[in-house]
Amino acid sequence: MSVTDELLANAELYARDFDKGHLPLPPARGVAVLACMDARLNVYGLLGLTEGDAHVIRNAGGAVTDDAIRSLAISQRLLGTREIILIHHTGCGMLTFTDDEFRTRIEEETGIRPPWAAEAFSDLERDVRQSIARIKASPFIPHKDSVRGFVYSVEKGTLTEVS
Amino acid sequence: MSVTDELLANAELYARDFDKGHLPLPPARGVAVLACMDARLNVYGLLGLTEGDAHVIRNAGGAVTDDAIRSLAISQRLLGTREIILIHHTGCGMLTFTDDEFRTRIEEETGIRPPWAAEAFSDLERDVRQSIARIKASPFIPHKDSVRGFVYSVEKGTLTEVS
Repeated sequence: MSVTDELLANAELYARDFDKGHLPLPPARGVAVLACMDARLNVYGLLGLTEGDAHVIRNAGGAVTDDAIRSLAISQRLLGTREIILIHHTGCGMLTFTDDEFRTRIEEETGIRPPWAAEAFSDLERDVRQSIARIKASPFIPHKDSVRGFVYSVEKGTLTEVS
Repeated sequence: MSVTDELLANAELYARDFDKGHLPLPPARGVAVLACMDARLNVYGLLGLTEGDAHVIRNAGGAVTDDAIRSLAISQRLLGTREIILIHHTGCGMLTFTDDEFRTRIEEETGIRPPWAAEAFSDLERDVRQSIARIKASPFIPHKDSVRGFVYSVEKGTLTEVS
């Protein structure tokens, strides 16, 4: 039995008790969260979210890539969110390599150099500030009054704001 | 009090009971999930995941963009995941507009046409198949034996595999 099959069995249990079938499309809390994909970061649990509350966008590093801007633009322009919460975290895998190393390794193995940056970083707080700055600089994000960035501690379970 | 501040108060409660401070960086279940950012889709709840289990990548539509490929490549190459689960869902916002409409509207409002596709789609199952095909075609994803795609019903809470 694959892990996927095990998780599908969990999904059957979830459906059995399901009572949230009439939630509207726009997020009830008007918030979009952009966070790292890290397995230890439970965005719903950490922020106390429940079904219908918030858009959750996640990628390697919680980076403000063009794709994250695309998602945030759709979130704000079509689905009414107004606040953005950015979450990076301690012990992030993105701190363990450089863009050049990663892309060179892939090139050596596959013969093709990825056309995208890996978005690795060496300073956690500076990267949170970089992420906020990228959002503030984007012409496609209309609501920028509440764009706040945080570092989640995978050791302590705490969120610390980066100012 | 902003919604962000309310969610930060929830995060303080989460930290108070936190007892998962020693989880390793690689996901315990060896799985990466790529899902839509939709607020009604609770990936942890649905799949019965807990802290440390799986990478969770999310964007508007759960689209296999270059950024999703970047995240999946990092997940498999650096952090050992082997299975990929794709989740689209009924009632998706991405079914309600076209790429051209969205980009033209932004161009009219901001003067700048986004350089990225919005990744809107008109057929849910076809888009899941498109997503699987993009992953299978990517030279940067080494493990493709278990790439499975699903439609989550926001009305019923069920997952249905697309074959």
